[in-house]
Amino acid sequence: MKVSELGEFGLIDLIRDIVAKSQNLERASWQKTLVGIGDDAAAWQSNGHIELATTDTLVQNIHFDLRLTRWEELGWKALAVNLSDIAAMGGIPSYALLSLSLPGELEVEDMSKFINSMVHLAGEFGVAIVGGNVAAAPNVVITVTVIGYSKGKALLKRSTASPGEQIAVTGYLGLSAAGLEMLQGKIISEPETNNILRQAHLKPMPRVKEGQILVEQGVKTAIDISDGLVADLSHICESSKVNARIKIEKVPVHPVVIANFPNHKELALYGGEDYELLFTADETIIARVKQALNCPVTVIGDITKEQLPTRVTVVDSKGNSIPYRKGGWEHFKN
Amino acid sequence: MKVSELGEFGLIDLIRDIVAKSQNLERASWQKTLVGIGDDAAAWQSNGHIELATTDTLVQNIHFDLRLTRWEELGWKALAVNLSDIAAMGGIPSYALLSLSLPGELEVEDMSKFINSMVHLAGEFGVAIVGGNVAAAPNVVITVTVIGYSKGKALLKRSTASPGEQIAVTGYLGLSAAGLEMLQGKIISEPETNNILRQAHLKPMPRVKEGQILVEQGVKTAIDISDGLVADLSHICESSKVNARIKIEKVPVHPVVIANFPNHKELALYGGEDYELLFTADETIIARVKQALNCPVTVIGDITKEQLPTRVTVVDSKGNSIPYRKGGWEHFKN
Repeated sequence: MKVSELGEFGLIDLIRDIVAKSQNLERASWQKTLVGIGDDAAAWQSNGHIELATTDTLVQNIHFDLRLTRWEELGWKALAVNLSDIAAMGGIPSYALLSLSLPGELEVEDMSKFINSMVHLAGEFGVAIVGGNVAAAPNVVITVTVIGYSKGKALLKRSTASPGEQIAVTGYLGLSAAGLEMLQGKIISEPETNNILRQAHLKPMPRVKEGQILVEQGVKTAIDISDGLVADLSHICESSKVNARIKIEKVPVHPVVIANFPNHKELALYGGEDYELLFTADETIIARVKQALNCPVTVIGDITKEQLPTRVTVVDSKGNSIPYRKGGWEHFKN
Repeated sequence: MKVSELGEFGLIDLIRDIVAKSQNLERASWQKTLVGIGDDAAAWQSNGHIELATTDTLVQNIHFDLRLTRWEELGWKALAVNLSDIAAMGGIPSYALLSLSLPGELEVEDMSKFINSMVHLAGEFGVAIVGGNVAAAPNVVITVTVIGYSKGKALLKRSTASPGEQIAVTGYLGLSAAGLEMLQGKIISEPETNNILRQAHLKPMPRVKEGQILVEQGVKTAIDISDGLVADLSHICESSKVNARIKIEKVPVHPVVIANFPNHKELALYGGEDYELLFTADETIIARVKQALNCPVTVIGDITKEQLPTRVTVVDSKGNSIPYRKGGWEHFKN
């Protein structure tokens, strides 16, 4: 069988199964693994605190197109997506490693822009860039690893959602996917709108502070929206063995997207890369979170009992289920 | 200017300079950086212990050729090179992240072999594989990150060599480069020799235990041999601002390499990827290390005062300098 038939999530399951089989052989290290393969970041019981670690790779022509992306945007985004994974655990990022593979014919000046921008974003969160690796390669591949920690014992996981909980999301959705449509050719004549869309897709601001506040307010379950709202909610549902119902009219689509994109609902549901936090908790906690956060928090649905095969249902204002295409971004399938 | 004109080490210097300029902005995180860009691994002051972190990328057709390498060998090597970086700091590896980018037309069975082999090596050192990332890509790119720690406050660094110290190396050199020559077409008819060479190049065993013993015995300066003996010794010399002299007849070339490769001295000096530990210390400490280690330890020269431009001199038995080509492996230059 080919990897493309198995798909991204099938391949992750395969890796997880092989790793799980080996756990008895190396007991000490496995006992310290608090969260292993299949969450936003791994969590590890260190002396006196919980370490968090995450890594993400951007591949040229898969994750980005150098004809559409400036180097400073790429440096920013490569770090931002990893900081977002630490945010989705409710953690505090400490330091980062950069592994950069690229063709030798690239301009040194572009590399400077790339690094300067990454360092700038790192500085926003007090993150030090402490090491890494450079290598020649036929196309650009950027891997960033971020190590962080959790203040206390609490973490935001994917596996702890319960029926009856509300589902909420920070900020607005659909902006990043709309930005990509614009970069790929859709004409947006208004310069300010153009900026907002470009920034959303290429220079997302990870919700690091917000993730920590979610933990402080008692939230236990969260993920960042990278694959898309429906896809990422499905990840929570699979990990937690529950179902979820999204009320389509509640989904906070950004006004700029509504105004310029007739397919705005679709962009918000499936677009991905918004790097907002999607979380579940009971009503009281969500009310506290709304008070505590400085950004919009919108309740978009609720967690229900497990009922297979469909994990996530999207309903209209009358509660009728709306047919939708499955999932969001999946490598090897898209 | 192109990256190829700047070279691998020029690009690393550029990154280090940009990062260094930003240090005032993010004081808390920089104060905790004990060892930053430019050593085998980064070291970070955590609560009560020192964290170590390293990442390394293998790119198809740059670092490996799938026509010459089995998937199980690739899985082993991708982790081994990172464990070797932790070994070169005298640290203990704890857990690993794997970021795997690959074309969808690859066979799932090959991926299983790859992961099983990586998990096998991880088990040898009690390392847990706790997370990572998979993505589609036009060619295979494997990035492994290993996080570890140091037992006490002592570390093996590149910057602490002093004039008068001896230079020593574990094990034998040249085997890995000889293995590569064999894989690329040189005929070795003896099956056992063939095995030794193949294993040396594709399934190196990192000197993790040995690195820890070096620290215990008071060694302060070490690097693992990945770029080549002369190149890696040059890295120590540059970091420590010293020179070094290698006595060519002392370099421990493996008997199999001597017997089969007329260019054996060159393979041992420049070949690289032996993943042995190269270290410096005074005579008393080296004598203790020889007692404490179970592998061969050979003194191959000594550290001398800084005298530019040439960092490393290779001398014959009469003390006459032997001309040699500069450096070992350098990305964008080779």
